[in-house]
Amino acid sequence: MLLGVTSSYSRSAPVQFQPMKSLTDHASWQRLTAHYQTIKDRSISDLFTDHNGRFDHFSIAAPGLFCDYAKNHIDQTTLSLLSELADDCDLSSAIDRLFAGDIVNATEQRAAWHTALRDPAPNTEIQNAQAKMQQLATDIAGQGYTDILHVGIGGSYLGPAVVHDAFSAIQAPQLRCHFITDENEQALQQLLSRLDPTKTLMIVVSKSFSTAETMVNAKRILPWLQASSSDALEKQLFAVTMNDQAAKAFGVAKAHVFPMWDWVGGRFSLWSTVSLSLVLAFGWDLFSALLSGAHAMDQHFRTQSWTQNLPVILALIAIWYRNFFKAQTQAMIPYHAALRNLPGHLQQLHMESLGKRVTQSGAAMDYDTGAVIWGGVGPSSQHSFHQLLLQGNTCVPIDFMVTQEDHLPYINCLAQAAAMMQGDQSLPAHQRISGNVPSTMLVMKTMNANSLGALLAMYEHKIFVQSVIWDIDAFDQWGVESGKRLAKRLLSNDFEDSVDASTMGLLKGVTQ
Amino acid sequence: MLLGVTSSYSRSAPVQFQPMKSLTDHASWQRLTAHYQTIKDRSISDLFTDHNGRFDHFSIAAPGLFCDYAKNHIDQTTLSLLSELADDCDLSSAIDRLFAGDIVNATEQRAAWHTALRDPAPNTEIQNAQAKMQQLATDIAGQGYTDILHVGIGGSYLGPAVVHDAFSAIQAPQLRCHFITDENEQALQQLLSRLDPTKTLMIVVSKSFSTAETMVNAKRILPWLQASSSDALEKQLFAVTMNDQAAKAFGVAKAHVFPMWDWVGGRFSLWSTVSLSLVLAFGWDLFSALLSGAHAMDQHFRTQSWTQNLPVILALIAIWYRNFFKAQTQAMIPYHAALRNLPGHLQQLHMESLGKRVTQSGAAMDYDTGAVIWGGVGPSSQHSFHQLLLQGNTCVPIDFMVTQEDHLPYINCLAQAAAMMQGDQSLPAHQRISGNVPSTMLVMKTMNANSLGALLAMYEHKIFVQSVIWDIDAFDQWGVESGKRLAKRLLSNDFEDSVDASTMGLLKGVTQ
Repeated sequence: MLLGVTSSYSRSAPVQFQPMKSLTDHASWQRLTAHYQTIKDRSISDLFTDHNGRFDHFSIAAPGLFCDYAKNHIDQTTLSLLSELADDCDLSSAIDRLFAGDIVNATEQRAAWHTALRDPAPNTEIQNAQAKMQQLATDIAGQGYTDILHVGIGGSYLGPAVVHDAFSAIQAPQLRCHFITDENEQALQQLLSRLDPTKTLMIVVSKSFSTAETMVNAKRILPWLQASSSDALEKQLFAVTMNDQAAKAFGVAKAHVFPMWDWVGGRFSLWSTVSLSLVLAFGWDLFSALLSGAHAMDQHFRTQSWTQNLPVILALIAIWYRNFFKAQTQAMIPYHAALRNLPGHLQQLHMESLGKRVTQSGAAMDYDTGAVIWGGVGPSSQHSFHQLLLQGNTCVPIDFMVTQEDHLPYINCLAQAAAMMQGDQSLPAHQRISGNVPSTMLVMKTMNANSLGALLAMYEHKIFVQSVIWDIDAFDQWGVESGKRLAKRLLSNDFEDSVDASTMGLLKGVTQ
Repeated sequence: MLLGVTSSYSRSAPVQFQPMKSLTDHASWQRLTAHYQTIKDRSISDLFTDHNGRFDHFSIAAPGLFCDYAKNHIDQTTLSLLSELADDCDLSSAIDRLFAGDIVNATEQRAAWHTALRDPAPNTEIQNAQAKMQQLATDIAGQGYTDILHVGIGGSYLGPAVVHDAFSAIQAPQLRCHFITDENEQALQQLLSRLDPTKTLMIVVSKSFSTAETMVNAKRILPWLQASSSDALEKQLFAVTMNDQAAKAFGVAKAHVFPMWDWVGGRFSLWSTVSLSLVLAFGWDLFSALLSGAHAMDQHFRTQSWTQNLPVILALIAIWYRNFFKAQTQAMIPYHAALRNLPGHLQQLHMESLGKRVTQSGAAMDYDTGAVIWGGVGPSSQHSFHQLLLQGNTCVPIDFMVTQEDHLPYINCLAQAAAMMQGDQSLPAHQRISGNVPSTMLVMKTMNANSLGALLAMYEHKIFVQSVIWDIDAFDQWGVESGKRLAKRLLSNDFEDSVDASTMGLLKGVTQ
């Protein structure tokens, strides 16, 4: 049932003549609702007892990644019904449209073609951009540069930061990268005071070249760079942007502007020129291996049947918890310090893509969509929030990511997942572990660029599958725009009576 | 109603003769249940329309902090009923016991006397420890040291890291602090290669001096330090611990051991010698101002009536959302880059304290307890997860923390809170902001040690109030211990048939 279909978002949208079928009208959905009643009180441990081959059955070797999803509240029936749901929502066609570069972002009339960036035979404009990145890496080698200031925020920062830390665990960088995001001026000046401006490259990353925080930081750094030598800007300043004009006005040499494209969303942009700083710091080969790993996952996603398809399986399980178990959150816990920034990136990827309340046709829906994604690095989180996972009373499904070669964290990770699922009823009440906490284990053999690429691409596709089933646009972010607009009005004192008494009181200033 | 009262946790616990009253049996609870039905569908904006003085009425100037809580789903009746609930749970006596240093942590038979650490007239052992910290700061001044390695994890790290970043925004440190927590060996070696071992102090922070991750890191650093000079350990190695013997065996000079106490829990330990590195880096005065700010909040908490008592008000609102609105999470969003680590600290503080499923007498309860605490730094989070807060369909109450002097982030923060509450119905469906997102604004005039101390102490007390009403032990963490035990068994191959097929399969190793 659709709750009050509202007017379509755009005059050019096709008029819907037949009544649309809502997600909850599908027979598969209704059977899942009934199935939930039969499974919700069975413990996961019991599911293991009932099914000898459970580990083999509910695990999958995908490119670069092994996934064990046996420790979830699912059985064969659950997966079959969820697969039917995927068919009912025509997932197959949606995947075809995504890879074809069709307009899958309807509200912005754009493709979401990040998969093209990791195609081993890319189109000419991608090929040229990649060649330009490689050329720059070659050109600056041996010139004595030591540091890079990567100035960007949101998607222009989170993905590259994840990859930067992971690459740092694989090889020592040729240049140190500093990501300048939301620093206050004092912290920025302290950093600059430790750097040599004649040995530092500055890369401003902003699709529009007008992102407020990024431009504030870029303008603060510019005089420091400029003062070091008369040709510093000409030699050391770079831009990654779609807005060549603004970059030029800022002082970036024409040859130093790296292209962005409107068919790459910010949160999917780490596969593009947005990762220029990584190519300079770690070389093209490592970045190329990242792209290959992602491409292998793309092929897996396009070709495998739903029950052999890792992104699809994880999406179906996420829907199962969100819509039937009513879990409002999902935890992301990498057991590797080099993946410290991964939960933040996955948070943005999920919450910007799936934090929506209207369907593709602009109707309010009667089911829950995106969950809150949160997490932290394993060994530290064992000493902090695991307490609630082990002894609290909120249902939190968990994704663990771990490398097999690092023995101590690997065993710790397995032990936490096992303790959370099995529980321990033999202890006194206040020590008792109730168990039944669901988790999924994503295993990389080693920390390597291929597996990391596969892992990141896997989550992008998982989110896309969720968006197809929930019938939402995974590629827009109109809420973010709206918040920015109100901030502009407040900054320019253009609000009159339209602001509430509490905001007005705080604007006048408070004293303590 | 209590669901199956289980055996008490300890033979020494007093036998309960009269049937215990559960939280949900209180008349105030039942009236709140009814009241929820009357208020749940009213928008927060309507509450402003109905009550002209809403901002003045629902805001409070506490020591060091101004709090506006008007943008919440509450009216005067809500607060009155919640205050009654606090009385029904005998909050007043519980506060007295906390400050008296009574055994408020029953399962471990310990006090939780962190408030004593910030008393301006502390007892002799605290006074001696503080004098020892000051003396060391004086002794090392001018000796040419440049860096400190603070080795610790969980509570031995999170609090000091928050304060470190905030202090860095107030004054430049005399020594650079590096927190070594869950680093993998490669990252640690890269850090060490950039430091001069003759100019570096090492502080090992572990109450037991046996925390696995901390000891692994300490042992990795020790040879590097030792190799630099024959008396390096004697001069440059320090320990903060209760276990003098283990510290001595590790090579720490007797005079270099700083005391810890069993009446200070790890997550409340930043007020103790655990912050030695901060005293050395920023001087005693700044740390002393932090203690003063916390003490002022302690006095506020002890003396104010519930509706004028900031920690109590925020605890009552948290209970309102968790138990009646069924919000499974709460977001913590500081709009100041220097508070980057605050969400992680508040996450540990809340989730370790409130992630419990049995009452003080060991009974399972029929109400929800601790929520998932998550968040991030404001300006960055605007470009990532705010999308879900603005346009998703999950109820997430938010605490914003902001400094008034930093104009741009202050206005941005107010704008986000206003946009989230007011919404914007005039936009096309896919751009529409539904509004009605509740938030609380905590305002510091400037980033200063006093206000920061007050803010941190405020949350400690807020959590304590929640634990009193939920009838749980806020100061134990038995779940954490249990996870550690299973890890030890897996590491020593001591598990036989007691491990599930999925863990067994992963232990055997997987291939990709």
